[in-house]
Amino acid sequence: MNPAHRILVVGSVALDSIRTPYGEVTEALGGSASYFSSSASHFAPVSVVAVVGEDFPAEHRALLGRRGVDLSGLQTAAGRTFRWRGEYMAELGHAHTLETQLNVFAEFHPRLDAEHCRAPFVFLANIDPDLQLEVLSQMRRPMLTLSDTMNYWIARKPDRVFEVLRRVDVALLNEEEARALAGETHLSRAADKLLDQGANAVIIKKGEHGALYHSREERFITPAYPVVALTDPTGAGDSFAGGFIGMLARFGRLDGVALRQAMACGTAMASMAIEGFSPLRLAETSPEEIEGRVHSLHGMVHYDLFPMF
Amino acid sequence: MNPAHRILVVGSVALDSIRTPYGEVTEALGGSASYFSSSASHFAPVSVVAVVGEDFPAEHRALLGRRGVDLSGLQTAAGRTFRWRGEYMAELGHAHTLETQLNVFAEFHPRLDAEHCRAPFVFLANIDPDLQLEVLSQMRRPMLTLSDTMNYWIARKPDRVFEVLRRVDVALLNEEEARALAGETHLSRAADKLLDQGANAVIIKKGEHGALYHSREERFITPAYPVVALTDPTGAGDSFAGGFIGMLARFGRLDGVALRQAMACGTAMASMAIEGFSPLRLAETSPEEIEGRVHSLHGMVHYDLFPMF
Repeated sequence: MNPAHRILVVGSVALDSIRTPYGEVTEALGGSASYFSSSASHFAPVSVVAVVGEDFPAEHRALLGRRGVDLSGLQTAAGRTFRWRGEYMAELGHAHTLETQLNVFAEFHPRLDAEHCRAPFVFLANIDPDLQLEVLSQMRRPMLTLSDTMNYWIARKPDRVFEVLRRVDVALLNEEEARALAGETHLSRAADKLLDQGANAVIIKKGEHGALYHSREERFITPAYPVVALTDPTGAGDSFAGGFIGMLARFGRLDGVALRQAMACGTAMASMAIEGFSPLRLAETSPEEIEGRVHSLHGMVHYDLFPMF
Repeated sequence: MNPAHRILVVGSVALDSIRTPYGEVTEALGGSASYFSSSASHFAPVSVVAVVGEDFPAEHRALLGRRGVDLSGLQTAAGRTFRWRGEYMAELGHAHTLETQLNVFAEFHPRLDAEHCRAPFVFLANIDPDLQLEVLSQMRRPMLTLSDTMNYWIARKPDRVFEVLRRVDVALLNEEEARALAGETHLSRAADKLLDQGANAVIIKKGEHGALYHSREERFITPAYPVVALTDPTGAGDSFAGGFIGMLARFGRLDGVALRQAMACGTAMASMAIEGFSPLRLAETSPEEIEGRVHSLHGMVHYDLFPMF
């Protein structure tokens, strides 16, 4: 096998204080780039471009370092690290934000060096779409670009979010974001509408109900892996993104076969992320466990077709 | 191929007046037995045991007759046919019941003749669990029994609902019913708990999110078929049941391979049921269309596994 391709992620590194029905943590490692890189680094080398404050704990940096993540693009700015405080109720569907302190993240401006700009795989995590576009314009012929966003940007800068959607290869959205952006409640029609409006491909994340991939050539649906030890849903989407793009970067393939297994791989990584607080559980998994979970998911969805009539 | 096995359904035949965002109908053919038999009759011969009033329109009877459904067990009682009036809002998730007139259905007592009792496949649609148990006790060594229920019975007669669950081969429940009966919100844990409490196998229907099959031997998940021409969700569950048991009765097989394709087949039939009001759309489909939809669903969920590490 050829060496895996490098992945660049531009996003947030944060300190999360989270309460769920299963426990709580205070100032644990969080942020999209942390979850993404803990996930993707099992498949391919990852470079993080993000910002932290001077108070960012060395142990969190060490955790990402142990995963072999390149942190040369992790700036340390004067001030405090981005903090988020939230809780989940019994159903675990939606986070209830108690407090957001953007701190140094408010002034975040991605700085890419020449090496970053040559990364063949890119994940633009949920940041201001203007910054996402700035990063895109600096990339040198990437093989695959994947974006994320959130309702906050859809409400405030819909045109820029659309511009990102048109310029990336695959746009990752959750159900509500897809509906809001497409102006259509029916999910499969919403996906079609986003393609009509210029998206190349979309992945719609449905939480416990799985995810769907929709392009002009491919339509693929995967259920979620049925997690029993559910602990904290934070980071599920970014961990999914890490497994998805990680798998593709590992194989350097973008065809339908690779894509479908990449969706399964993203699903497996998301299922592990939510079995613990922070990306720790994800960072500590093994190739055997990842492959085992992908196989187990396959066993739950696979069936043979035989003639019916 | 051997001739398909006969299926007995005991349930309701009703007149439905329904409004959805896509249109409305008045006193259209409805009821669990109508949807089920319109679906299952594409695969195997079906006998209906139900009751209607003297006002039941001949055209509705004719529709089921054209599908070759045996209506010898459809009693006509003095009085009016069971009527249901409901509407669905934009999200189409839940029916809002405006009016229920049980009429002759209030006194319904299934009468099975010797032929009915020998049916190898049985669907006990949503009726009083005491009546379901009465039917079960009259059956002569059926190959497969499938039950449905509703929150109404779970709240009023939980012990009897559990007794049905333990005595049938497969119990069909929707998400809310499974959660209520198991006393557990996490769906996969709820399914496990129902098995612990004596169920042999459960199918949990998740509407637009598909369905899962759970037994001690098998775990299978299927997403829903992504319907674009959604019109009226009424009868989706009974149409699913018809495709599921219909497929098994057609092949006389109950192994894992048959079971998985049966789940896909139920999914395909449910997707057609909701593309129109009443079981008309379902009654008029063809073997080619059914098989096409099962193939198309397979194409959306299938993936090949290749080594990841």
